[in-house]
Amino acid sequence: MVGYTAPEDTINEMNGNSVKINAETRVCGVIGNPVAHSLSPAMHNAAFAATGLNYVYVAFRVEDVGACLAGMRAMDGFRGLSVTIPHKVAAMAHVDVVDPLAARVGCVNTIVNESGRLRGTITDGLGTLRAFDEAGVALEGRRILFLGAGGAVRAVAFAMAERGAPGRISILGRTRSRVEALAADLRAVAPDNVATGDLCGDLARALAEHDVIIHGTPLGMHGHGEGESCVPPEWLRPEHVVFDMVYRPMNTRLVCDAEAAGCTVIRGLEMLLHQAALQFECWTECAAPTDIMRAALLAELQHAERAS
Amino acid sequence: MVGYTAPEDTINEMNGNSVKINAETRVCGVIGNPVAHSLSPAMHNAAFAATGLNYVYVAFRVEDVGACLAGMRAMDGFRGLSVTIPHKVAAMAHVDVVDPLAARVGCVNTIVNESGRLRGTITDGLGTLRAFDEAGVALEGRRILFLGAGGAVRAVAFAMAERGAPGRISILGRTRSRVEALAADLRAVAPDNVATGDLCGDLARALAEHDVIIHGTPLGMHGHGEGESCVPPEWLRPEHVVFDMVYRPMNTRLVCDAEAAGCTVIRGLEMLLHQAALQFECWTECAAPTDIMRAALLAELQHAERAS
Repeated sequence: MVGYTAPEDTINEMNGNSVKINAETRVCGVIGNPVAHSLSPAMHNAAFAATGLNYVYVAFRVEDVGACLAGMRAMDGFRGLSVTIPHKVAAMAHVDVVDPLAARVGCVNTIVNESGRLRGTITDGLGTLRAFDEAGVALEGRRILFLGAGGAVRAVAFAMAERGAPGRISILGRTRSRVEALAADLRAVAPDNVATGDLCGDLARALAEHDVIIHGTPLGMHGHGEGESCVPPEWLRPEHVVFDMVYRPMNTRLVCDAEAAGCTVIRGLEMLLHQAALQFECWTECAAPTDIMRAALLAELQHAERAS
Repeated sequence: MVGYTAPEDTINEMNGNSVKINAETRVCGVIGNPVAHSLSPAMHNAAFAATGLNYVYVAFRVEDVGACLAGMRAMDGFRGLSVTIPHKVAAMAHVDVVDPLAARVGCVNTIVNESGRLRGTITDGLGTLRAFDEAGVALEGRRILFLGAGGAVRAVAFAMAERGAPGRISILGRTRSRVEALAADLRAVAPDNVATGDLCGDLARALAEHDVIIHGTPLGMHGHGEGESCVPPEWLRPEHVVFDMVYRPMNTRLVCDAEAAGCTVIRGLEMLLHQAALQFECWTECAAPTDIMRAALLAELQHAERAS
């Protein structure tokens, strides 16, 4: 026995803050398929380390989301999950209670294990509202134009319709049935101010008649027409607020065009950041260290851009 | 965007080695009830950090072991579990394949997630063999005396009967039916050299006739008669090898008496250590850094003893 030396505690150290990983450490993670390139572990682990909260955040590739969530429910200490593609809709059927906004949107991106009761919620839309708020952009009475009608647009449109008090919400897309279905669902919340149109034929007039432009198609994303934009730059005006949901690359063609045109610009990474910050707050019931999380996210995105 | 600074990566740092917790980090843990005072996170996280393997080890309090293991099976990246009281028997029914030794013992303490197939195994007995080996104690032909007939004795007795080639295995206990049941099971492996007796009435003669004394009752454990021993010190001889499964306190009355009598002594923490080292090897397929794990375990045990 003589001569044994005790090592330093195993620590999860960052910026001088440290968290010991021990029997009290709570686990959060992301489930999806694939998840190998998820940016969430970097953000959340940085936040846990900076706040000194005894949590760790990992990633699980999952096919059977029902079995996964039954297991989470059985594991006390498994506090939270981020849910990403392709499980956001399916996961809703396997939790015990769903927040009203998530129920309207029809999917969850966040699960909180409340002592064996799984609560599903969605932070994409409210995170985006926080990004607008942080950018100093008020939505009350504004005319908001969505380009695209996919799941992310749906999440943000419902949050804005319910909480943002916009003057008008218009949705332009290529697939008329999808656009009209989203508009019909939104009218249950905002009966009088939802309009629709075609992404090609109606774009010029729509840009002229709206204040806030939210781009929610994949165009311009790494691997999906990077360097392209569905908005001709000559149609952008300095009065426009332009939010591009695409976060990779950080500076899309649309972001660059909008900055050149003097628009107020909100990048996609701000949505990614603030939906994660809200998740952090759901799990820990503490204020998220947003600047720390942004720095961690930026480091990951810059690393990814250098690598590609 | 200007002015953002990228923080250092979140690291799990120890002794100059560091592991980044990211989307590739594999998760291991312990399930039991309770688990709040488990010593396993300290040992395994120290080992992962020292070897630079991208793993983290946490603890989950679990009641429904079937749901927990179904969830583990569904989570790729959830690589391994230690199973402790009260789930060691029940867990065996929820894995996909059981190693032969674990099947004989009738419980598992280790689960390996092999790409969605859960394999159950038991490392308590083989870990103890490794502790004897490390102490330079050969078991071939030796007369081994077990005091107690509980689950830990069962695990070690089967490993010794199958792999240790002892000359004799004797089991003394207080509950005759339990002692005889274990002996009957052991005779399936070692038909000719298993004997039984009573822990009170037969102890003096048994100590005189055996070389290796393995204490497997709770007596002497913190909270279970600490400071007491079921072996009168005057019956110990320098030729005895004494292994006390009790690890808290590290220096039990029996350990102190055996050292005073000049016996070769193996402490309970060596069993705890080597069963964990074998688990590490099951999960990582790398050699365990046993000295690092021992140092981490010692630090935890010393901390616990100071605190009590």
